[in-house]
Amino acid sequence: MEQLRGACIIGQSGGPTSVINSSAYGVIRTALDAPEITAVYGAANGIQGVLAGRLYDMSTEAPAEIELMKHTPSSELGSCRYKIADPDVDDTDYKRILEVFKQYNVRYFFYNGGNDSMDTCNKISRYMKKVGYDCRVMGVPKTIDNDLFGTDHCPGFGSAAKYIATSIAEVYKDAHVYNTGMITVIEIMGRHAGWLAGSAALAGLVGCGPDVVYLPEVDFDMDQFLKDVTDIYNKTGKCMVAVSEGVHYADGSFVSEAKTAAGDGFGHAQLGGLATRLANVIKEKTGAQVRGIELSLLQRCGAHLASQRDIDEAFLAGKTAVEEALKGESGYMVGFQRLAGSEYGVRTALFPLEVEANYEKKVPLEWINKEHNGVTKEFIDYALPLIQGETYIPKENGLPRFARLKKVLA
Amino acid sequence: MEQLRGACIIGQSGGPTSVINSSAYGVIRTALDAPEITAVYGAANGIQGVLAGRLYDMSTEAPAEIELMKHTPSSELGSCRYKIADPDVDDTDYKRILEVFKQYNVRYFFYNGGNDSMDTCNKISRYMKKVGYDCRVMGVPKTIDNDLFGTDHCPGFGSAAKYIATSIAEVYKDAHVYNTGMITVIEIMGRHAGWLAGSAALAGLVGCGPDVVYLPEVDFDMDQFLKDVTDIYNKTGKCMVAVSEGVHYADGSFVSEAKTAAGDGFGHAQLGGLATRLANVIKEKTGAQVRGIELSLLQRCGAHLASQRDIDEAFLAGKTAVEEALKGESGYMVGFQRLAGSEYGVRTALFPLEVEANYEKKVPLEWINKEHNGVTKEFIDYALPLIQGETYIPKENGLPRFARLKKVLA
Repeated sequence: MEQLRGACIIGQSGGPTSVINSSAYGVIRTALDAPEITAVYGAANGIQGVLAGRLYDMSTEAPAEIELMKHTPSSELGSCRYKIADPDVDDTDYKRILEVFKQYNVRYFFYNGGNDSMDTCNKISRYMKKVGYDCRVMGVPKTIDNDLFGTDHCPGFGSAAKYIATSIAEVYKDAHVYNTGMITVIEIMGRHAGWLAGSAALAGLVGCGPDVVYLPEVDFDMDQFLKDVTDIYNKTGKCMVAVSEGVHYADGSFVSEAKTAAGDGFGHAQLGGLATRLANVIKEKTGAQVRGIELSLLQRCGAHLASQRDIDEAFLAGKTAVEEALKGESGYMVGFQRLAGSEYGVRTALFPLEVEANYEKKVPLEWINKEHNGVTKEFIDYALPLIQGETYIPKENGLPRFARLKKVLA
Repeated sequence: MEQLRGACIIGQSGGPTSVINSSAYGVIRTALDAPEITAVYGAANGIQGVLAGRLYDMSTEAPAEIELMKHTPSSELGSCRYKIADPDVDDTDYKRILEVFKQYNVRYFFYNGGNDSMDTCNKISRYMKKVGYDCRVMGVPKTIDNDLFGTDHCPGFGSAAKYIATSIAEVYKDAHVYNTGMITVIEIMGRHAGWLAGSAALAGLVGCGPDVVYLPEVDFDMDQFLKDVTDIYNKTGKCMVAVSEGVHYADGSFVSEAKTAAGDGFGHAQLGGLATRLANVIKEKTGAQVRGIELSLLQRCGAHLASQRDIDEAFLAGKTAVEEALKGESGYMVGFQRLAGSEYGVRTALFPLEVEANYEKKVPLEWINKEHNGVTKEFIDYALPLIQGETYIPKENGLPRFARLKKVLA
């Protein structure tokens, strides 16, 4: 494959994770070290930064400072949720992108994000090919939701799973301290896929797991839920519930949004999240002391508790994207294939970006127990290796020392 | 002082912290090693365990296992919220305690808890003296609220403060990722004292602090609050708010409980916590995207992020309680005096248990800024040393390996 000389852009898009910046650093470090790559630009707020011509010159950053991106949560270059048009319908944005690419001689474009970002990436790749502009486009995956096509798992998931399982174990200790009844409901992210909620069950390996786990892959039945919880509570005096924010009734309506859900005992609109709602329903039904806890943003930005394996794999995904692009590849997302055998191992693999934009990889139904309130050993065996490895985040004053980039505009 | 031979009891009471077990371990380890102490019992669920005669024989535990208590959150022996009567009014409980003490030849009693626990401790001490039963009673402080009399600070506070400041810094990164408006309201524990809410400001030292902090030491004014937040939001497009769960209006009513607070725009009862409530008020007023986050139990059981200094000091408090009791002291709570000078240092000190039971040490008003929406440098200088030191919690399967005690009843 012929050598392609030119600048590269790395952009980040979608919701934050603890390790998305490790991937971006993988791209930036590898690109800065590659002789064919003449300049490394970070797009401010993803594709919006490209459209606005807001590009940070990464060569002006101190090497030690950009390396801190490995431990810095959220998207350090800024993110966006910009929905780009289909180029066959409206090519305005693409013309502008091409203009910027030409202006800066951009020949490599790396986009770091989830399903929507891969779709953006694919559209840009197709457009550049169509207009005959030589540019290699690679997707670098990230999502705590773990719902991307092709890849065994997604950078970001392992760290969120580790945060969730650790927090559940700690809350378990807290919730079992009195010899009085206590029910705890913990709400976990994952609107359509239950990978994160299922990860709560990992805490069971250290004896501090939830009693029941509810995933959005199966319909939620409020009566059955109340029976599950009440049975456990009546037997043990405690019950810990882990529930995905995305649980929904059989008619598809989210439990968190239903205004007058049958059986929930409330006839009026409720503010607050799902955990609060379920806690109130349980309280009304059982009279027990109930506490609802929402892990909220904490689970996706808890970099101090990131999985070191996840950090390393996130870096590897970014590095591989650059290496493969330099070899001539384009139009792919970098992902992982898990090696067979009892020891965990992965190899990187390239997955064509050309997939359904709305695809969401869900937890296989056979990994959910038949009572629909827990996950099987197969789920645990899948998720456990991904939370391994302790990270030692650099500190200053006893607090995380995140990257502080100069962000000099090109 | 004459030597007093006999057994000891250690009990834990009140809400969990990340390091209360480090104090209990300080007592247990030191007592097990003391020749005068003939047996070491852990009371199951505090004073309730004494009353029920439910005592764990700590000598049956493997030394390495009890040492894990240093990293195990919540009260490992179990806690209670039992309010003991005044012995001059009703001495039923005290007679039973004396009976148990005699049965097991208990000559040392250590009680690990907050203000209420110190009051219990004091009453038991007075009763034993009154009936002429020779028993040395010592209080070992714990509370994330940092509101105990006498002592410079309380074991448990530093770890909760570190958890809060770290989480705020991480959420800051998350909340600043898009170039769109975003207001974040983070609710922090502390019903009557603002030590924990004020600690949110520590995150400012790494450039990721809240814009405003509201403490319960001063009256909350909803109009001023909305003005503060709106002004910052209009200027920067973002606003991060840290607020104590205990903020209250000038009439003393909690903002979290007011059904129809003037100016909050709601005429109906609201479920959910203060963060959700304030987020909704702001949303209604500004139309901005607002997210409410409650740190909930996580902030008091996040042992993985404990301050190592706090763990060490908690241990020291327990150890000192035993050592001083062996020397003949009784009727005191162990606490800390901070040494003068620029380097942080403490010495242990004994504070008479004989204080007002309802005392709550609050943040000095001069440590709150004159706008009543932040803390001063004096607060930071006070709190910062307490969050220092990284702990490396033992892990198993990538998850915390907490103590697993056999809890053999004596």
